[in-house]
Amino acid sequence: MQKVKQIVSEILAKQEINTVYYVGCGGSLSGFFPAKYFLSCEAKKLKVGYINANEFVHATPKEVGKDTVVILASQRGNTAETVKAAAVANEIGAVTIGLTFVVPSPLAETAQYVIQYEFGPESIVENQKASYGVKLALEILNQTEGYEKYDEMTAALGNLHGIVEQAKKDVVPTAIKYAWEFKDDSVIYTMGSGACWGPAHQEAICIFMEMQWINASVIHSGEFFHGPFEITDKNTAFLMMKSCGHTRALDDRALNFIRKFNDRIFVLDASEYGIGGLGDTAEYLEPLFYNNVIAVFNGLLADARKHPLTTRRYMWKFPY
Amino acid sequence: MQKVKQIVSEILAKQEINTVYYVGCGGSLSGFFPAKYFLSCEAKKLKVGYINANEFVHATPKEVGKDTVVILASQRGNTAETVKAAAVANEIGAVTIGLTFVVPSPLAETAQYVIQYEFGPESIVENQKASYGVKLALEILNQTEGYEKYDEMTAALGNLHGIVEQAKKDVVPTAIKYAWEFKDDSVIYTMGSGACWGPAHQEAICIFMEMQWINASVIHSGEFFHGPFEITDKNTAFLMMKSCGHTRALDDRALNFIRKFNDRIFVLDASEYGIGGLGDTAEYLEPLFYNNVIAVFNGLLADARKHPLTTRRYMWKFPY
Repeated sequence: MQKVKQIVSEILAKQEINTVYYVGCGGSLSGFFPAKYFLSCEAKKLKVGYINANEFVHATPKEVGKDTVVILASQRGNTAETVKAAAVANEIGAVTIGLTFVVPSPLAETAQYVIQYEFGPESIVENQKASYGVKLALEILNQTEGYEKYDEMTAALGNLHGIVEQAKKDVVPTAIKYAWEFKDDSVIYTMGSGACWGPAHQEAICIFMEMQWINASVIHSGEFFHGPFEITDKNTAFLMMKSCGHTRALDDRALNFIRKFNDRIFVLDASEYGIGGLGDTAEYLEPLFYNNVIAVFNGLLADARKHPLTTRRYMWKFPY
Repeated sequence: MQKVKQIVSEILAKQEINTVYYVGCGGSLSGFFPAKYFLSCEAKKLKVGYINANEFVHATPKEVGKDTVVILASQRGNTAETVKAAAVANEIGAVTIGLTFVVPSPLAETAQYVIQYEFGPESIVENQKASYGVKLALEILNQTEGYEKYDEMTAALGNLHGIVEQAKKDVVPTAIKYAWEFKDDSVIYTMGSGACWGPAHQEAICIFMEMQWINASVIHSGEFFHGPFEITDKNTAFLMMKSCGHTRALDDRALNFIRKFNDRIFVLDASEYGIGGLGDTAEYLEPLFYNNVIAVFNGLLADARKHPLTTRRYMWKFPY
């Protein structure tokens, strides 16, 4: 948190911040969803944007200006459109902060501020990419408008790692059950609400579609009854990342319905693994729990299907 | 436009507007996407939100206040969570505008202002639900910050109907081809970028999933290469609603890739049907074109599959 605090203080010593934009592609965009959601819920004045990097380059929103902080992420720091987006933002006079695992890298060279995050099974949860997105949101909100739960949320971020590590052990039997249950499915729907729409979306695009070549789509729990639920039959596979927060009622409503017609729903519920101990801000940090804990299931699913998570047919193999 | 202008003038005679929230469920939320996108691109100061009605009820964003206009839609005016969202917004002191096809109805009774829109094959495009969403955005933007293309966009809205009517005739052969091509597919991906992500999302959830029980998902063209493209093989079915605007390059990049591996992509391109004649603001109105023109294909697909668009297994039949 110290580095984030220092960056935000340095920016605010020179100018105002009235807009925060989160920019990236794929998992480096969806990883920002919790931060975007947190600001959408808690900010009274700050504006927040969340946008694909290439859309930012080609259709740059007019609200992006000198009072905007543009936060961009790229794992290797070399995603061409994200680097270009940083350059476009610099050109406009916005402040750019680049989050990357690899330094030096083109993003690290282009962004005005750089945060090198941790990645992989040994990483500390609060030092991961998505956590830095949230920490930047928290720090900017607190230093501009003030946020009464700043200390509570900062402490919760620090306590998250222990909860995640224990859950990664405790979830194993359930993960084995559903890896076996879903191994032959050609379509899996992920579900979530509130901040948890983010990790549910990420699971669909980065794990099922990208790494397992399983057709997938995220359904927002609150949207389920307004179209999507008609695809439900007794064989439809669902994976829900249940919210511990204000939108839990939306998840329960969808679950109650699905369970009348289908028993093929894997409900991962962070509340059963002690997330509630983090206090009132747990709902904003819960996606960081799911990002990590679902990896246990993902590894087992890949093993059950004999389809390693590293297999690609196009990525890094064809020009695009 | 006259009624919209009057409503916005009346509001601004009494107070400021600094935030606009679009609230609904399913097609009544996705129909607002073009309006949301327009404000995200063009507004320099106005804040804009776009949120599922039940999420609005349970996790009401703190930025919603007395200077907020909450615009809600419900076809029959009786979607329980949307009516509740209007009541919640009223309680906070926000201004509420309800868009509905049915008056009197609970939404019409709850919202402070009511717009009854046209619906169905005989309706005038600019008087449809999604068009009122855009007109409200345009009017609020112009009356608060000013918008230099206000007159051009107002004229374009009026000219859209003729383009749509002609396109509904001209698209028939292509629609027949793809209705036959896709009739046995169990999964179809829709694609779009910019404002056209909205109708592409709507086609996936309201037509394929709800009305045809075909598994579906929308892929943002700019996100395609960052996960989703790995599901592409020679049999994958795609339907792209191509943008005529700033993000067209994103669509072309995805198309160029897909066509190397697959010839099962139905590209509906409003540019080929004269949308460009509407001028610079055409990209914001293009979703209104797709909402209407795709109906020709949807009807033929339903016929080819002997699965009427009105068939439901749960909606209106089970409590939920």
